[in-house]
Amino acid sequence: MGGPSLMTADIPRAVRSPVDPETLAQFSSSNGLYHCLFAEQFDRPIIERLIKLTDHLRALTKTKAGDDFVASVLSNKRAMLYFSQPSTRTFLSFQNACHILGMNTCEIRDPRTSSQMKGESFEDTIRTFASYVDLIIIRHFENGFAEHAARTLQGTHRPVPIINAGAGTYQHPTQALLDVYTMNRYLPGGIDGKTLMLVGDLQRGRTVRSLALMMRNYKDVRILFVSPPQFRMMPDILGALKDSGISYEETEDFEGALAQADTVYMTRVQDEHDTAGESRTVDIGRYCLRPEHLRFMKKSSIILHPLPRRDEIHPDVDADPRAAYWRQERNGLWTRAALMAVTLGIENILLERKA
Amino acid sequence: MGGPSLMTADIPRAVRSPVDPETLAQFSSSNGLYHCLFAEQFDRPIIERLIKLTDHLRALTKTKAGDDFVASVLSNKRAMLYFSQPSTRTFLSFQNACHILGMNTCEIRDPRTSSQMKGESFEDTIRTFASYVDLIIIRHFENGFAEHAARTLQGTHRPVPIINAGAGTYQHPTQALLDVYTMNRYLPGGIDGKTLMLVGDLQRGRTVRSLALMMRNYKDVRILFVSPPQFRMMPDILGALKDSGISYEETEDFEGALAQADTVYMTRVQDEHDTAGESRTVDIGRYCLRPEHLRFMKKSSIILHPLPRRDEIHPDVDADPRAAYWRQERNGLWTRAALMAVTLGIENILLERKA
Amino acid sequence: MGGPSLMTADIPRAVRSPVDPETLAQFSSSNGLYHCLFAEQFDRPIIERLIKLTDHLRALTKTKAGDDFVASVLSNKRAMLYFSQPSTRTFLSFQNACHILGMNTCEIRDPRTSSQMKGESFEDTIRTFASYVDLIIIRHFENGFAEHAARTLQGTHRPVPIINAGAGTYQHPTQALLDVYTMNRYLPGGIDGKTLMLVGDLQRGRTVRSLALMMRNYKDVRILFVSPPQFRMMPDILGALKDSGISYEETEDFEGALAQADTVYMTRVQDEHDTAGESRTVDIGRYCLRPEHLRFMKKSSIILHPLPRRDEIHPDVDADPRAAYWRQERNGLWTRAALMAVTLGIENILLERKA
Repeated sequence: MGGPSLMTADIPRAVRSPVDPETLAQFSSSNGLYHCLFAEQFDRPIIERLIKLTDHLRALTKTKAGDDFVASVLSNKRAMLYFSQPSTRTFLSFQNACHILGMNTCEIRDPRTSSQMKGESFEDTIRTFASYVDLIIIRHFENGFAEHAARTLQGTHRPVPIINAGAGTYQHPTQALLDVYTMNRYLPGGIDGKTLMLVGDLQRGRTVRSLALMMRNYKDVRILFVSPPQFRMMPDILGALKDSGISYEETEDFEGALAQADTVYMTRVQDEHDTAGESRTVDIGRYCLRPEHLRFMKKSSIILHPLPRRDEIHPDVDADPRAAYWRQERNGLWTRAALMAVTLGIENILLERKA
Repeated sequence: MGGPSLMTADIPRAVRSPVDPETLAQFSSSNGLYHCLFAEQFDRPIIERLIKLTDHLRALTKTKAGDDFVASVLSNKRAMLYFSQPSTRTFLSFQNACHILGMNTCEIRDPRTSSQMKGESFEDTIRTFASYVDLIIIRHFENGFAEHAARTLQGTHRPVPIINAGAGTYQHPTQALLDVYTMNRYLPGGIDGKTLMLVGDLQRGRTVRSLALMMRNYKDVRILFVSPPQFRMMPDILGALKDSGISYEETEDFEGALAQADTVYMTRVQDEHDTAGESRTVDIGRYCLRPEHLRFMKKSSIILHPLPRRDEIHPDVDADPRAAYWRQERNGLWTRAALMAVTLGIENILLERKA
Repeated sequence: MGGPSLMTADIPRAVRSPVDPETLAQFSSSNGLYHCLFAEQFDRPIIERLIKLTDHLRALTKTKAGDDFVASVLSNKRAMLYFSQPSTRTFLSFQNACHILGMNTCEIRDPRTSSQMKGESFEDTIRTFASYVDLIIIRHFENGFAEHAARTLQGTHRPVPIINAGAGTYQHPTQALLDVYTMNRYLPGGIDGKTLMLVGDLQRGRTVRSLALMMRNYKDVRILFVSPPQFRMMPDILGALKDSGISYEETEDFEGALAQADTVYMTRVQDEHDTAGESRTVDIGRYCLRPEHLRFMKKSSIILHPLPRRDEIHPDVDADPRAAYWRQERNGLWTRAALMAVTLGIENILLERKA
């Protein structure tokens, strides 16, 4: 799946992190965010603003009058969801966040129904989207696709902001944003000084890559990378952490790490990126959270998962009060609405309205 | 078609009717309906309420001011259409009913674009939908899917109502509701005392199963089941009718039944449920309504069909004033809007508004 | 692609232009347009009205108050997009035009998810759409499909307008409308007296066929048909031009024509209509616009393309001020909104509102 690799020969398949400051500056605006492509774009002040706005949106939308106000501000804007990889969660999360903000949406989910069938270049496709809508949300199997889309539009008469909703094995910045929002909300005292345990297919998991980069905004944090040897975190991320003075450890000791973690972040094997079924040769049974593990964990810790899950978290764990993944998922709705509100310049209009 | 049977091993393929009262109570709320899963949930008082509200919605929406009022009450609600079987009519009927009520909609119609591709369990998928929307409308090829979805959500922090928009060969309660609305509207004096003739593939037709169950709410009704022997109505439905004292007859005499019927309800062969093309061996030519049959029929009778049709009703029959299937189809829009209005608790707000 | 040719045996595959006046009258209303099926329906007064309304819509929607007003007039109407051929541009253009007008939309894009799978006739499918919505926009691979849909509905109790969004190799009237709007807007002094150069696969290009027919509304225009011999314009269009006294020339001299043209209208090879890959045997390299050609062209000329493009226009041409195809594409949004506003009878309500 993931659609044919049409006309994308010029998009780099492997993209290193962290992105250099010149590139970041290129995609930002004076209010801090325009295109949202990389986790590196979220510095601490932007994160704090987004957390504040997310909380405010949640409060505003506790009444129908608040809902209707929130939906009135961007009622004349239109968003496009271009998802060339299968997705339920991120797609629905963004689409419903658009609806919360009052935006109409349109979507291309299946490359077979689009003009790429007719041999159109990717650049022309993106310019076409920009002709019709005010915001483009992209999920793609190519690592640099969203960035390339943003660059393509920068040179045109009608640039519109691009939001990266998941790019290949590279980045998933809005997932990292909602993860940070969730940790900040449920960890006593917030994220500073806490230990984050990342478990699973760290090599190809764009979510954990983006989240690790975001951790550089916090003080005295520690990251435990827990994976089978075949799925270790890539050197570019480890290098970025080292350069930022973030303490981390790589280990295969799942149970030992559990006892230390404030956040236990589970992920699934990303076998859609297999080239020859290599995931089947890796035993991940040791990296699955089962009810018997809960007693090893700190009382104040939380369990997260970007979802969808397979066997990484036993369904019986759901009943534990530390299981926060369903709340995490729903937080995505509000953080994405907040992000798009900032992108489209209505942050202050929303903040000025009393909840 | 119908999508792969992913993670649904635990859903019972064969579900017997009628559903027991304890189960029914489980899925209802104090206002009578919460999840809408079975025809058995519609007792006569609920049917009468829904007919009244449907009529009121039709009256309200005769003016733009009325339309705009109706669309304002649920403007902050969002519905999800999860259709894993091909559908035009029911899908569009529900989606446009949502739009009449002012709700935004999102949809998953093709399992290949969703996270079930990534091995997510059905329960997790449903919880995810519930994270983002206020109502989930489900069509599925598995008989007990919608019920299983409702049960899954009942145990969570964010239950939302489930509406069954067609489940395998088992039930299609909202179709039966619109059928009852249509008969009540066009049969002189209503449904009590009338004869309903159900024709076609009665064995696998979820529509006729649900409709037969709904007839138990009416007095002195009689049902004629007309089918080739291979497609006879299943014993569970016949048993439910017998237990309720509903008079019925099974026959292969199409023309004889035509002369007695107040409602002639035609259906197509449900060959999507064939396992080895067995439908091709059944001659249904004798069970097709052609212009020459019209003279056998009562003047005051009506012809219904859940649609889509193949050869069961000759297109030349459409011109006969008794042909009510196109009006029946459009009635679905309003009955479904009324049902969702009750489900989401705005029945009284609508009724208080003068048409 | 294009979906299975189900139940469409009775639709004529080859449809000749121009359409006779009796047929045109059949599909029009007293305000000039009801169904929009053929380029021949656009006479000069209608074109001028649509240009005026398009300009007014652009002006109105320069403010949020204007946007909100425009979106309020049809807030109770619903449109259906039935696209059985792959499309990005036309689909998104219409859908977003609907959203600009405040209409809700629903869509069937993939025949596999619809009831045609269940053997429903095309006529029944169209009647079903008409049951639920107020306007149907159709793209289909069959030449006469939209016309057949309109005829089907004319005899029913619930006719709704049909808009042809591209029919086989036959016509694409709304593309021609936006092309005319674009030429009128950017050519100094408008279209009268100008030379239009149509380049590419003229035989199977529905866009150039419709546009050529529209040219009959203008005075002293001249058309240069530039194509390889295998892709020459069909005799029916040439005959229609001759009968209307429109001057035209067929040539293979691309560069010679470039020097004379006021509008250079490029098109791609329509190889989706190949029956045996015949397009691959045609050399179109000589009919591609490259930067070195720009010096042959008039200073005041414009370059158009219905898009998507392949190699017909080199991307480096985009930077030339005469390259108008991206503006042309965006103009489609506004001309289609204007067309639907006329179709649905709100032209005057919009015009009365000061921009």
